[in-house]
Amino acid sequence: MVRILSKENVSELLTMKDALKYVEEAYKQLTLGQALVPQRIAITDPAPGLTLVMPGIIGGEMNALATKIVSVYKQNPEKYQMPTVLAKIMVQDINTGDIVGIMDGSLITAMRTGAATGVSVKYLARKDSRVMGIYSAGIQARKQVVGTYWGLDQKLERCKVFDLKKETAIQFKTELEKELGIEIKIVNSGNDLLEDTDILVAATTSTTPLFDGNNVSEGTHISSIGAHAADVRELDTAIIKRASLRVAGLKEACLAEAGDYIIPIKEGIITEDDIISIGEIITGRSEGRKTNSDITVFKSVGISAQDVATAKLVYDRAIEQGIGKNIDF
Amino acid sequence: MVRILSKENVSELLTMKDALKYVEEAYKQLTLGQALVPQRIAITDPAPGLTLVMPGIIGGEMNALATKIVSVYKQNPEKYQMPTVLAKIMVQDINTGDIVGIMDGSLITAMRTGAATGVSVKYLARKDSRVMGIYSAGIQARKQVVGTYWGLDQKLERCKVFDLKKETAIQFKTELEKELGIEIKIVNSGNDLLEDTDILVAATTSTTPLFDGNNVSEGTHISSIGAHAADVRELDTAIIKRASLRVAGLKEACLAEAGDYIIPIKEGIITEDDIISIGEIITGRSEGRKTNSDITVFKSVGISAQDVATAKLVYDRAIEQGIGKNIDF
Repeated sequence: MVRILSKENVSELLTMKDALKYVEEAYKQLTLGQALVPQRIAITDPAPGLTLVMPGIIGGEMNALATKIVSVYKQNPEKYQMPTVLAKIMVQDINTGDIVGIMDGSLITAMRTGAATGVSVKYLARKDSRVMGIYSAGIQARKQVVGTYWGLDQKLERCKVFDLKKETAIQFKTELEKELGIEIKIVNSGNDLLEDTDILVAATTSTTPLFDGNNVSEGTHISSIGAHAADVRELDTAIIKRASLRVAGLKEACLAEAGDYIIPIKEGIITEDDIISIGEIITGRSEGRKTNSDITVFKSVGISAQDVATAKLVYDRAIEQGIGKNIDF
Repeated sequence: MVRILSKENVSELLTMKDALKYVEEAYKQLTLGQALVPQRIAITDPAPGLTLVMPGIIGGEMNALATKIVSVYKQNPEKYQMPTVLAKIMVQDINTGDIVGIMDGSLITAMRTGAATGVSVKYLARKDSRVMGIYSAGIQARKQVVGTYWGLDQKLERCKVFDLKKETAIQFKTELEKELGIEIKIVNSGNDLLEDTDILVAATTSTTPLFDGNNVSEGTHISSIGAHAADVRELDTAIIKRASLRVAGLKEACLAEAGDYIIPIKEGIITEDDIISIGEIITGRSEGRKTNSDITVFKSVGISAQDVATAKLVYDRAIEQGIGKNIDF
């Protein structure tokens, strides 16, 4: 019996509060050596787009085993009136190997990425943080705000947003003011995000740094979830150098895919030893923020453990609440 | 819209005759460089079983993109009254990346393995072959006979079978005599398979050679589909040495996983250059059997291209014939 869950089902079942807990647990189990994130498989040629196949397993109390198949086809909107990014997740019973759930994966991808930032906020931002600034007003960015809101235990009061597309920014404001009841302020330049801001989030498709790290206020926590290749980055060397803590969702993944850390390492500004996985802090193996003036940086590239944990959460809730369609095949 | 196909649907849609054509095309496209078989991902710990995630893509006229998730949990039958091997295949639209079909993969796995042997029979066995012998009477073995039957263009007349489990052999005989209308003869020892036999198939779980290669008759074609690790094999060094043609489903895969070839190479009896992919013969780049006294050997380890081709075939037939359930999610 396979439980099929549509995007609407997932949306009904998945809250950011839960996603944050599950993604935190995934990071913890990775550090404890109870989770595996194999190198994902990328398929392109002879297809006109990219498919990533991302399996993962998490032990501990979660006992989750799943594979995400996500495709990125840039011609889809124009040629087929379909989204560029499509994803589905297959959840297996860890005891039998049987595929017991198949669900839409697009919302889960955005939510688990928001949850990653949320976990970083919980462990790295100042407890008195109330204001955030965010680069980009896109779909991913919206879930970043929700993740930050829950990472701060609902204490976020204001969010400043910068996006070149005015309309997208207005939609962002309308949606999030309604959803979270916080004040959203649209600003006119990226630099406007840096002043009087406790938490700075970068969620863009930029391949070059978004701001001068020398202009960031002391005490700021920064999370970057865009840019995931060795030669591109959202954060410049200055901010990486100034940071007291340089944290990764998963250190190995960032050392392979995050120019934000790879470039300063190549420049000799920091070494690999200066980077830790957030699981080190969650498990208490490493110390978190020490003072209110520390600058903390969190960089995450998507890893399957985030999807696996979030999909397991959705599957478990669906079974509890009797949501979705059962199909025997 | 996703077309969901149960094992019964697959069984209704999939014929060996078609599977043979599609698997042949997959082998051909691999040789032409129009298909990709990435290294599959294996996940075990902390699960009590093994999961293999096998994506692949085939271009040319087939344009197939799919991923098989197959699990092997040995405790399933006893602990959960479930099969050891479970599999599902996700078929993507190669133009949009969208997952458009999800189907049971267990029958497809057996059929595509039978089809591999069928393709080898078509290209390597003597045209006047009428009698086969097979080691094992299990599920995989049955599809090997069907594959051989179609590889010989329905001219197979008799099949000798050896299996330690008498009951399994009787079931094999009943099923295949009914399905193919050929004579099935149960023999009492593996050596009984070697005499007056044109085609010899090995489909066992053995880790050591099944017969003395010196006792094989001239002109025999041999296909081995069991044993897929570097240190185990179904075929001994003698038969590999005697063979005029040493063929692989995919050479690179056999050099990584097939002790049948790896061990004789390590012993210095043959070199890597003595092995060719069957696609070389299908495309006419290499010559096939030269005389009726040649011994030909075909070794295949499962590669995703076989699954991808067969799943695409099933999906296309399902759409044509309106079979399966459509689910929007």
